[in-house]
Amino acid sequence: MKSIKRELFGPGPTNVPDSILQALSLPTIGHLDPEFLRIMDETSERLRYCMQTQNALTFVLSAPGSIGMETGLVNLLEPGDKIVICINGVFGGRMRDICERVGAEVVSIENDWGTPVDPDELERTLYDHDDVAVVAFVHAETSTGVCSDAKRIAEVARKHGCLVVSDCVTSLSGVELRVDDWGLDVVYSGSQKCLSCVPGLSPITFSQQAVERIKQRKTRVQSWFCDISLLMSYYESGEKTRAYHHTAPVNSLFAMHEALRLVEEETLETRWARHTAAASRLYSRLESAGLELIVDPEYRLAPLTLVRIPEGTDDAAVRGRLLESKSIELGGGLGKFAGKAWRIGLMGQNATAERVDFVADALISELQ
Amino acid sequence: MKSIKRELFGPGPTNVPDSILQALSLPTIGHLDPEFLRIMDETSERLRYCMQTQNALTFVLSAPGSIGMETGLVNLLEPGDKIVICINGVFGGRMRDICERVGAEVVSIENDWGTPVDPDELERTLYDHDDVAVVAFVHAETSTGVCSDAKRIAEVARKHGCLVVSDCVTSLSGVELRVDDWGLDVVYSGSQKCLSCVPGLSPITFSQQAVERIKQRKTRVQSWFCDISLLMSYYESGEKTRAYHHTAPVNSLFAMHEALRLVEEETLETRWARHTAAASRLYSRLESAGLELIVDPEYRLAPLTLVRIPEGTDDAAVRGRLLESKSIELGGGLGKFAGKAWRIGLMGQNATAERVDFVADALISELQ
Repeated sequence: MKSIKRELFGPGPTNVPDSILQALSLPTIGHLDPEFLRIMDETSERLRYCMQTQNALTFVLSAPGSIGMETGLVNLLEPGDKIVICINGVFGGRMRDICERVGAEVVSIENDWGTPVDPDELERTLYDHDDVAVVAFVHAETSTGVCSDAKRIAEVARKHGCLVVSDCVTSLSGVELRVDDWGLDVVYSGSQKCLSCVPGLSPITFSQQAVERIKQRKTRVQSWFCDISLLMSYYESGEKTRAYHHTAPVNSLFAMHEALRLVEEETLETRWARHTAAASRLYSRLESAGLELIVDPEYRLAPLTLVRIPEGTDDAAVRGRLLESKSIELGGGLGKFAGKAWRIGLMGQNATAERVDFVADALISELQ
Repeated sequence: MKSIKRELFGPGPTNVPDSILQALSLPTIGHLDPEFLRIMDETSERLRYCMQTQNALTFVLSAPGSIGMETGLVNLLEPGDKIVICINGVFGGRMRDICERVGAEVVSIENDWGTPVDPDELERTLYDHDDVAVVAFVHAETSTGVCSDAKRIAEVARKHGCLVVSDCVTSLSGVELRVDDWGLDVVYSGSQKCLSCVPGLSPITFSQQAVERIKQRKTRVQSWFCDISLLMSYYESGEKTRAYHHTAPVNSLFAMHEALRLVEEETLETRWARHTAAASRLYSRLESAGLELIVDPEYRLAPLTLVRIPEGTDDAAVRGRLLESKSIELGGGLGKFAGKAWRIGLMGQNATAERVDFVADALISELQ
């Protein structure tokens, strides 16, 4: 197969560092090999740092981020359980879809696309509803480029005795995220965003309170694959008794092990600051060229910027030409923003001044 | 990360050819990139050959084989639907577990571990039960090393108007399998067995009759990720309108694309014969050394052989020493065969006389 080199400035995947691709292509070993179990343990330990948590049940799911979302939600909910979902984009809407399929009683709070989740509205909703078990929201909405105040949202939810599920697919390692300090009970992410790893894996963590709730379920989770109780025995027991559940994607997990090592090496604080600095540079470059950003400065998600497509500009034509002439991928709009905005990702190794200039130069000259 | 080279003679993963590892580590591209869509189309086309089917809905699921099983079953079943499951090992049992979670009415036929599914018993069961919608069975039981007569089972099931789901995780490309000729409606497999690809993907196909049944569902599939109706629009529509569902594991799919190319290049018939010849050689080598094979010659699954652990032999110690001294992985027994049998896999590139001699020499000398 011929190699195609793309410059990935869409909503993910992003470009993957060579050392991660090298780890990916190491010879495959068995999923029950003691060496592999050691690598899994080390990966969980690195992930705890990356997520800023001490949760025992912290690991990488063997499937894309959408399985992270599903696993996070369906384990906490039984039919009839009440959940409040804060929706401000595509992925909040997907949370609702998943919860409705479980037969949960869903209370939605909808905020405008391009604006963050409103913690005060959440608080009012929680005063109005008894017996809400879980509050779920998206920390970093990949469809709108908005970052919500996860700390404040969790504070409100916990005050009302709710567990908190946070979608951190596009925030993990690119934006400040402190699972334990902020009191988030279930957090999941994707491999292909700010971790700069290959797509296909979903890091996830469960607090002890979440684990307790799962242990007290009266019904089984309908999805066998997503039923975390079957995996808990694997992750909680010692090496000797680890039971077979499914065949882990060994090579992709090698890649994740390396991706998380790079995060440790850089340190989280430096990595967050790097994403912020790159984003600021992009904002200046685009605004100087007369382009309009969709999200208010206060709520912008550093790893993903939404740019309004100028009046009269052909969305698909511009993206097509950038791809063909410069091998640059920009993201199109999703949902309500389809045809109205471009999504420019600066994730992982692409969050540098040099890469910002590269993509900004290309887009601006294309529009002239 | 340091490279560990193992000789993988367990139940999968098996050793992965270099050209597949090279494809795996090509630079990541976007999951909606026209080049990637072309590769996906080509992969589906190659998979149709590998499965011997013309089914339009033939593709690779972005998760391990257990998601293949779940996806295959949960889309065909709604609460209250009746399914007959033929169980002769761990994976038939897992099918039952999944169907019970859906709320289906499950009729189980249990055959002894180490023996195949009995088509006559299936026929009697289908005469005894009205309104059976689906018959499910495992073509190649990875827990017992038994190959069942998929053609005959499907014949019986179809005579009674049932759709047929067949688990072909350990048979695809290693054992004769003809989806269309045999009338199998849903067939899924895993990447890490006879395809010699990296673990983490599940090839799957749905007949037109299966698709029609799914389109007539009255309830939604409870799992969002497994709901094939959300993917059908992606696979059925032309390139221009393909909708985003989830971020595909691009690099693993590069590897699958190459693995299926190798199958085409070799041709299926040659590949099946190669697996059979390697297995025959293994049987002779082991039996000459006084070892006993668990399964009757007629039902043996060429890619995976079960060997009875000799009286007084320490299972874990033997496997541990083989791993430490020669980097050889053998599979332990699963379920009822735990501690009683070894599972020796000869899958994909390991199905050669040379590799048989290598593993047989090592095991026999270890036991002397």
